[in-house]
Amino acid sequence: MHSLDLRKPDGRNLTLYGREPITNVGTVLGDATPFAANPHLRWHPLLGTWVAYAAYRQDRTFLPPPEYNPLLPSANEAAPTELPTGRYDVAVFDNRFPVLAPTAGEPPALEAVPTDRASGQCEVVVYSQDPQRSLGHLPLDHVALLIDVWGDRTRRLAGRHGIQYVLPFENRGVEMGVTLHHPHGQIYAYPFVPMVPARIHQHERDHFLAHGVPLLGALLESEIAAATRILYCGPHAVAFVPAWARYTYEVWVAPRVAVARLDLLSAEQTADLARALKTVLLKYDGLWSRPFPYIMHWYQAPTDGAAHPEVHLHAEFYPAYRAPGKLKYLAGTEIAAGMFANDALPEQKASELRAVVVDVDA
Amino acid sequence: MHSLDLRKPDGRNLTLYGREPITNVGTVLGDATPFAANPHLRWHPLLGTWVAYAAYRQDRTFLPPPEYNPLLPSANEAAPTELPTGRYDVAVFDNRFPVLAPTAGEPPALEAVPTDRASGQCEVVVYSQDPQRSLGHLPLDHVALLIDVWGDRTRRLAGRHGIQYVLPFENRGVEMGVTLHHPHGQIYAYPFVPMVPARIHQHERDHFLAHGVPLLGALLESEIAAATRILYCGPHAVAFVPAWARYTYEVWVAPRVAVARLDLLSAEQTADLARALKTVLLKYDGLWSRPFPYIMHWYQAPTDGAAHPEVHLHAEFYPAYRAPGKLKYLAGTEIAAGMFANDALPEQKASELRAVVVDVDA
Repeated sequence: MHSLDLRKPDGRNLTLYGREPITNVGTVLGDATPFAANPHLRWHPLLGTWVAYAAYRQDRTFLPPPEYNPLLPSANEAAPTELPTGRYDVAVFDNRFPVLAPTAGEPPALEAVPTDRASGQCEVVVYSQDPQRSLGHLPLDHVALLIDVWGDRTRRLAGRHGIQYVLPFENRGVEMGVTLHHPHGQIYAYPFVPMVPARIHQHERDHFLAHGVPLLGALLESEIAAATRILYCGPHAVAFVPAWARYTYEVWVAPRVAVARLDLLSAEQTADLARALKTVLLKYDGLWSRPFPYIMHWYQAPTDGAAHPEVHLHAEFYPAYRAPGKLKYLAGTEIAAGMFANDALPEQKASELRAVVVDVDA
Repeated sequence: MHSLDLRKPDGRNLTLYGREPITNVGTVLGDATPFAANPHLRWHPLLGTWVAYAAYRQDRTFLPPPEYNPLLPSANEAAPTELPTGRYDVAVFDNRFPVLAPTAGEPPALEAVPTDRASGQCEVVVYSQDPQRSLGHLPLDHVALLIDVWGDRTRRLAGRHGIQYVLPFENRGVEMGVTLHHPHGQIYAYPFVPMVPARIHQHERDHFLAHGVPLLGALLESEIAAATRILYCGPHAVAFVPAWARYTYEVWVAPRVAVARLDLLSAEQTADLARALKTVLLKYDGLWSRPFPYIMHWYQAPTDGAAHPEVHLHAEFYPAYRAPGKLKYLAGTEIAAGMFANDALPEQKASELRAVVVDVDA
């Protein structure tokens, strides 16, 4: 993996990544007004968690016309974008409208509840220079590069003061609220372990203390043995519809042996995870012969400096649709109670996805 | 409050409620095939919670044309609906497509995770016989009747074997996934305390043990003293945008003193809560001069037979939009991490809602 660190005129970070050496990089264009995002946190006393406030985000770019694509490389000073021209594959830069930012200052004081700086980092990960190529349609070694990029960002962000958790994710499709069409993901680096990963981690810790092995590992073995819900099973990675899926067509992707964080994957694990990921993405797009919207995110270990043998890195995919043309709405029971109602059996949906023939080497 | 218990031809329960005596009730029509919904639960091992599976729900009624409204009273045997004709105000019946049901039988056995019967109850609450009148546009004493109905259902469901939690809620608007336009809400009775209310309850218990007073009570006093986020403050009820709002235009409604459950409200508290509710609903609809979609739900005490002096009953409203025409999407950070990013300050949104003049007595 080759990388080149740059800085945007407003002070934000930009890193270019390539399978080959990075060359012919043009000037990094853009507004020179110093970047000064100032979000803050307030404590939700009944849920016992932080909420982030970033009022300037109301003005963020919202589905611009295709002729204006801020994620496309540009060398035109009259029409700058977020990225320079040059030979590179993946680009990562600080979100212009972050929910968490290192520039966050003193929060307002409130009578009712504690407040805090929303320090942290929100990064945009541009998957390729091609605005039409979604993640699943990139070559395998390009997908593997992206996994390496997630690892590199995890390692770098983990090293910053106060960062406790790094979450790479992608919201795909306008159904998921995507505001830019150019294929990209995001990374949030939190100054605390957020509520959901904290809950998962608690169960991982409890299991490890009781049994001496990671919780997900035993589940993977059980899923591989059952075989019926497996979408991909390689030497180092597995993809499956979990028996406990909350969403219709929910899929998990994981290394077969426990790895705590994206930056700790071996080259062999990364290559096989790329194969697993691409398999899932092509099956999704093939299912109804249309781009399949989803939320994809990677759960890994907290970045607290400790080893985490109890944590087993994995990705979860939450599809937007439960059937062709029928969105899965998160409503009363899901949102208010936290109990999901799944209208389909994981076995049935796995069977449909297993039947979609794909060629990841094409 | 007057009520009349009936049974549908397929065995499902139906109760009619009225401010006046219930009269002229026609035959309860419908299919006589015995109701036999058979959902089941599977354990989500990483989140440590149950997921419900109800595959038959894929065929549920989805936005029928206005000429077919299953929630409208019908005396026509050739076109039966869920409700009979007659003089009554509110009707409650067992959902035809339940996620939890007393008829749930033995669950399938799985290798990977525990399973269980999805026993429980899912009820539909039809707010009035008028398909055009939303909750906020009903007379105050009709809204008060509905609160009494929620209380009556809570008491009845709490008395059934194995029910641990009762959640009344409403998904309003197609943006929230509503499948029937006739104004109605739902009630889920769970065989366990679901993840979100359990978390809230944990914080309520911790606070009560430490301070001897309910957590929400102190927060309400602080909000009433601050005044800036208050939408309604009557002798027994209050409505406000919490300082810790996760959603834009989020509103909470609560009795001013702690009441653990809807069935424990006094007549004075119910009347003032009706005023608070109607104020919020008319402000919502007045804000952009259009019906305002939301999820509304009531958090109350678990129905475990114990007294719960630590629990302070309240409703939370989560709007679908963050600005006119701009939906609030729950994506990466909200869904995957559980950290909400709010694009607006609660103070600003409270100010907008405070400026909407309404007349709840009209």
